[in-house]
Amino acid sequence: MLITLTSDFGLRDPYVAEMKGVILTLNPKATIIDISHCIEKFDIRMAAFTLASSAGYFPKDTVHAAVVDPGVGTQRRAILIQTKRGYFVGPDNGVLMLAAQSQGIQHIYELSNPNLMLPKISGTFHGRDIFAPAAAYLDKGVRASDFGQEINNPVTPNFAAVEQINESLSGEVLHIDGFGNIITNIKEKNMMKAKTLNVKLPEASLKIKFGKAYAESESGEPIVLVGSHGFLEIAVNQDSAMEKFHVKVGDKILFTSA
Amino acid sequence: MLITLTSDFGLRDPYVAEMKGVILTLNPKATIIDISHCIEKFDIRMAAFTLASSAGYFPKDTVHAAVVDPGVGTQRRAILIQTKRGYFVGPDNGVLMLAAQSQGIQHIYELSNPNLMLPKISGTFHGRDIFAPAAAYLDKGVRASDFGQEINNPVTPNFAAVEQINESLSGEVLHIDGFGNIITNIKEKNMMKAKTLNVKLPEASLKIKFGKAYAESESGEPIVLVGSHGFLEIAVNQDSAMEKFHVKVGDKILFTSA
Amino acid sequence: MLITLTSDFGLRDPYVAEMKGVILTLNPKATIIDISHCIEKFDIRMAAFTLASSAGYFPKDTVHAAVVDPGVGTQRRAILIQTKRGYFVGPDNGVLMLAAQSQGIQHIYELSNPNLMLPKISGTFHGRDIFAPAAAYLDKGVRASDFGQEINNPVTPNFAAVEQINESLSGEVLHIDGFGNIITNIKEKNMMKAKTLNVKLPEASLKIKFGKAYAESESGEPIVLVGSHGFLEIAVNQDSAMEKFHVKVGDKILFTSA
Repeated sequence: MLITLTSDFGLRDPYVAEMKGVILTLNPKATIIDISHCIEKFDIRMAAFTLASSAGYFPKDTVHAAVVDPGVGTQRRAILIQTKRGYFVGPDNGVLMLAAQSQGIQHIYELSNPNLMLPKISGTFHGRDIFAPAAAYLDKGVRASDFGQEINNPVTPNFAAVEQINESLSGEVLHIDGFGNIITNIKEKNMMKAKTLNVKLPEASLKIKFGKAYAESESGEPIVLVGSHGFLEIAVNQDSAMEKFHVKVGDKILFTSA
Repeated sequence: MLITLTSDFGLRDPYVAEMKGVILTLNPKATIIDISHCIEKFDIRMAAFTLASSAGYFPKDTVHAAVVDPGVGTQRRAILIQTKRGYFVGPDNGVLMLAAQSQGIQHIYELSNPNLMLPKISGTFHGRDIFAPAAAYLDKGVRASDFGQEINNPVTPNFAAVEQINESLSGEVLHIDGFGNIITNIKEKNMMKAKTLNVKLPEASLKIKFGKAYAESESGEPIVLVGSHGFLEIAVNQDSAMEKFHVKVGDKILFTSA
Repeated sequence: MLITLTSDFGLRDPYVAEMKGVILTLNPKATIIDISHCIEKFDIRMAAFTLASSAGYFPKDTVHAAVVDPGVGTQRRAILIQTKRGYFVGPDNGVLMLAAQSQGIQHIYELSNPNLMLPKISGTFHGRDIFAPAAAYLDKGVRASDFGQEINNPVTPNFAAVEQINESLSGEVLHIDGFGNIITNIKEKNMMKAKTLNVKLPEASLKIKFGKAYAESESGEPIVLVGSHGFLEIAVNQDSAMEKFHVKVGDKILFTSA
């Protein structure tokens, strides 16, 4: 009964609305929730992170459609992933895998059944022509195995691993949110227990307090904390850590107990 | 059961929410879908294109409200258009006509029945005071003819026609989407069969490959294709054609088989 | 049956979707409407204005959740306000009070019942962990008094009062909307009846026509009118009054009958 949408279509153009129109034509009772349509254009990694962060908060059997699709119209496959908690549809470029893996993948099917697509498929907008109908039909109860043949070699994104180097943890910047908070790929369980951390960034080396809430530091002062998705995060109270420390997604970052 | 909204209100201010509150107060079962609220301020042409692109993907009997309304509070009329597929409400300034014409116009009524508006009409926000109630009541089953008297002289927008000039097709830039793709007003059926086209833009003359998918060209290279709404479109794979070729909406454009 | 959301989370990150996922998991029949997620970061005053502007247009018993929360994770309380028309949940920092006061406050409770929150509360995202569940449960019929003990000392924002100075009214800029219209804190009833007003702004003193609709002035010319929320407003027909007069939120403004 619930379908989510994630894309890099932005909010100015009619693309998102066209997907919703298609879904509601095929499945008038669907409830559609936007995760984000402001993914940076073609940024599969950001879409994967965004979807993985939020998918777990939706009810069981939710269908998630994610369309960040630089290869649209080429030979890249369209896929459907069935997990223990729900379904994911989108291009086979890794965008779905982070979220799907965290739910336990059961089956992956290629979307190739023309009866479960729009009658006319454009070369440029499979979100509307293939993924929206797939989400609508799945949510309506069509079985995953009806969409096409099972596959076992999906494209898997190559996100950086966290490394332990002596007393330090080395990771990278996974995401920078709209508040300018720097979210790393280091999960809570990898983290040391310390009141202060030495943090090495590309353009700065700092000693930063380790706390629990943004407002534990003074206004304008940095703090390290475990963010709301369980990742180690650098924030500046009521300011942008990204701007203060000139950090961008993909930058290396090193934490050491002080 | 379905109402869509299109406007230039943006997403920062409470205007869109006020329209939705009014609709759900009068018609609690309505499902409301946003087409776009990021139309350029007062850009009737962009709103008309956006609505016309997406309206056809919604179910029969959908009510579309579009509010780009520089003349709000003046003598410009508020209208309701009944087509073969649904309903359109908005100001009589052309914003509805492109979409309504493509569905086959049956009747046009002036919105003048005060019982089908909010009790107090502001001079600045008819989206909330007139168009939202009209959409809510229409969707609830009130007959179109109950809203006011029929009219037959709606304002029709004057969008450029496509011209055949010897071997060439001359048109103009209808829209530039968030990816920087240049969408022209030339429809697929007007188009020549060629593998390469000579394209003349205000600041460039180029030979461009004619393909089916963005990714058929190399990253950073241009391609001409038939976009997802059937219009001839110039794109640059994983980049912005608008920025590369310094093109803006309304620019003349000439295609010739190479 | 209706829940609205207001925040400074923006539309790029997954935060809003996580709140919606939590709500729909706990209360699958909820209808969720966004008021705005583009409140300036940490701008309690703008959120308070935005919520107060729109809340009155929603049906009775609507639950409004507003999360602009610079003090998240500190000792600031989480509260629920029951009014004559509905419910408000959010941080106890004043963000809810303007809207709640205009509806008539009946009771205020602290949100402290752990059974009506997510099992694990982060230090950084109470929108998801506390306010979304509170909205979902309230909307589902849980009694307001079940959420925690009643309190009577909520934080009240200190917005400027309007002053009468001889023949003039002195107020301040409450909000500037996406059209660049300058919305003051002076309500219609405080206003003088005049055809022209002398308006003193920080960087300009002007005589401006007093009208009813933006388009009553020439394109590019200013007009003073009563805006759609009943406040005195300075606009420039089809242009931005903010840019023309270099005005920002909080600026003093003086109106005198000409």
